[in-house]
Amino acid sequence: MSSISVPPPKCLQKPLTVPYRHMFGPGPSNVPSRILEAGVNPVIGHMHPEIFEIMNDIKSGIQYMFQTQNKMTLAVSGTGHSAMECAIFNAVEPGDSVLVAVNGIWGERAAEMAERIGARVNTIVAPPGGCFTIEEMEKALSKHRPVLLFVAHGESSTGVLHPLDGIGQLCHKYNCLFLVDSVASIGGAPVYMDQQEIDILYTGSQKVLNAPPGTAPISFSERACQKIFSRRTKPVSFYLDLSWLANYWGCDGKPSRLPSVCEFVCESLGLENSWERHLKVAEYFHAGLESMGLKLFVKEKRLRLPTVTTIVAPYGYDWKEITSYIMKTHNLEISGGLRPSVGLVLRVGLMGCNSSRENVDMVLAALKDALKHCHKSKV
Amino acid sequence: MSSISVPPPKCLQKPLTVPYRHMFGPGPSNVPSRILEAGVNPVIGHMHPEIFEIMNDIKSGIQYMFQTQNKMTLAVSGTGHSAMECAIFNAVEPGDSVLVAVNGIWGERAAEMAERIGARVNTIVAPPGGCFTIEEMEKALSKHRPVLLFVAHGESSTGVLHPLDGIGQLCHKYNCLFLVDSVASIGGAPVYMDQQEIDILYTGSQKVLNAPPGTAPISFSERACQKIFSRRTKPVSFYLDLSWLANYWGCDGKPSRLPSVCEFVCESLGLENSWERHLKVAEYFHAGLESMGLKLFVKEKRLRLPTVTTIVAPYGYDWKEITSYIMKTHNLEISGGLRPSVGLVLRVGLMGCNSSRENVDMVLAALKDALKHCHKSKV
Repeated sequence: MSSISVPPPKCLQKPLTVPYRHMFGPGPSNVPSRILEAGVNPVIGHMHPEIFEIMNDIKSGIQYMFQTQNKMTLAVSGTGHSAMECAIFNAVEPGDSVLVAVNGIWGERAAEMAERIGARVNTIVAPPGGCFTIEEMEKALSKHRPVLLFVAHGESSTGVLHPLDGIGQLCHKYNCLFLVDSVASIGGAPVYMDQQEIDILYTGSQKVLNAPPGTAPISFSERACQKIFSRRTKPVSFYLDLSWLANYWGCDGKPSRLPSVCEFVCESLGLENSWERHLKVAEYFHAGLESMGLKLFVKEKRLRLPTVTTIVAPYGYDWKEITSYIMKTHNLEISGGLRPSVGLVLRVGLMGCNSSRENVDMVLAALKDALKHCHKSKV
Repeated sequence: MSSISVPPPKCLQKPLTVPYRHMFGPGPSNVPSRILEAGVNPVIGHMHPEIFEIMNDIKSGIQYMFQTQNKMTLAVSGTGHSAMECAIFNAVEPGDSVLVAVNGIWGERAAEMAERIGARVNTIVAPPGGCFTIEEMEKALSKHRPVLLFVAHGESSTGVLHPLDGIGQLCHKYNCLFLVDSVASIGGAPVYMDQQEIDILYTGSQKVLNAPPGTAPISFSERACQKIFSRRTKPVSFYLDLSWLANYWGCDGKPSRLPSVCEFVCESLGLENSWERHLKVAEYFHAGLESMGLKLFVKEKRLRLPTVTTIVAPYGYDWKEITSYIMKTHNLEISGGLRPSVGLVLRVGLMGCNSSRENVDMVLAALKDALKHCHKSKV
């Protein structure tokens, strides 16, 4: 006969308290209270008529945000990583050739995911801070003849905004699908899914959209659907199988906060205004950094991601001391590098509602203060 | 040059409104406002000290709920389905033999997931409403020598609570891991992970726990970890790879609502009281149904799932008319069958805060009203 052997934990007797912080790292960003409060709506069922209406509204919002008319537009119940797997699991079969443009961690991640499901993966690699020309893309497409090309639009590990124009058309010349990760860029920099002939586009909710993590918008072109729905094998994941998602989407009855998000982007601001504002605020920020004597990691202006700025780690300082000092003294998160950029950069994300001149001034003041108070080696 | 071609959708100009309903289907259940309101806490980062504390608290809550001391206890960012895939993707390698006890949809689903990743899957099948004896389990284990046996504790499609005692010990005699789905049962019926020698146990958040969907608690025994961390191949999913989850868990910075949930189970109620209450309320409900002349689908009392009751579809009626009538007239969701039980049953879920005599009375009154007003054939 079994009996209770693990007692109720004492730690759960105290109420949950979470401090407010300025979330100016590469994500998550701050979530405005009106979006958080949308989550207080009651949960309803996955077959109730209102949920279909909500799903349709979310779909319209994503179509606007992605600038697409794709019918196959939905949100995955998971983080941006799950949308990345959703794209790769559905579009790629074992043995398929996949080409990944690697200029930071997200390309590495996509290559790893494709390898795990048995694809033949080839990469083109640019150094941290770099990106690829159309000629480099064409050379690789022509050599490897992939079924899918992956490009990260916003490479948040290095702060690069990868130009997208012309790549979709090039892919289609080589009968290849064009997959774009816009987790760190959507809403903060222009993306035109249909006009740029992007076949699969996904993002996350916790960056420019200022929503809690856990919902990942994704869209598939007709061309992508044709490949996916004529697969010879089933995708490895049932959870992310597009044929089920297409059918069942919204079946978890979650009263998504995305309508509020889309409201935010659409109504309060508008997509073009949002892009413009992120650009202007980033330029203002970059000028401020340079006037302090700091250097930007991405040299070429047009390649700078307006949502996540990478600053060359200040010479003579320990970057960890700087980020810790700013967190402790200013209640403000900025971060160090990620994978290829560790030790090389500081990263500051100003996304969605966080993208404002006031916040730039706050970050600049915090950085000045940190450079004054943190230990500097004499070297 | 690209330009905006998809205008902001008008549908997103109106605020999100979601009606309140009595959610007495097999899930999701109602979420009490104190749990919904916990989600209004600010989002913080995945490396902030408070998030580690919150993660530890969640872990303690899950350990209590599962009655386990397993260190490898966490929550997946996804629905119950993603936890199911997390279990199978990590524990099974291509070519491994897997045994699935199928007595409803969840066994079918587990078999499909294991097949998709290249396992050799064998099943034992019981008719809807049935379950398996220890002898049947042993015969199959001895014949197929699987690395993993799947059993659904609460088979919500048929309303069966599968006895668990003795199966874990049996599995270990055959060097097999014991995987249990407790999505529809945890908190509503006794489970003792350690004492019952369950190697992998998972659940969802939107049933007895009365939390929003999208977070799935899961725990792995030492024995399970040994197999998982000595794999020859990588799991197909990066997102659900246990070596990353173990390392990174909580990395999405989501201020989980699970602490509140666990608070609910631990403090307001206590696990044993919760089990007892679900059982008593179910018995009260079943007696009421029988006194109305309705029949229970699961004949043997001890096999009846206390969280989801299956009622034999009333003779002469169209079950869809009954569920629609009750939704329309009483603002109350009950549902029909699922996969093997479609057309055979009505399903009523009374889970967590919904498990009360008042709610039973409400459902009984609604059913009486429906049987009076819905069309009955003369046959």
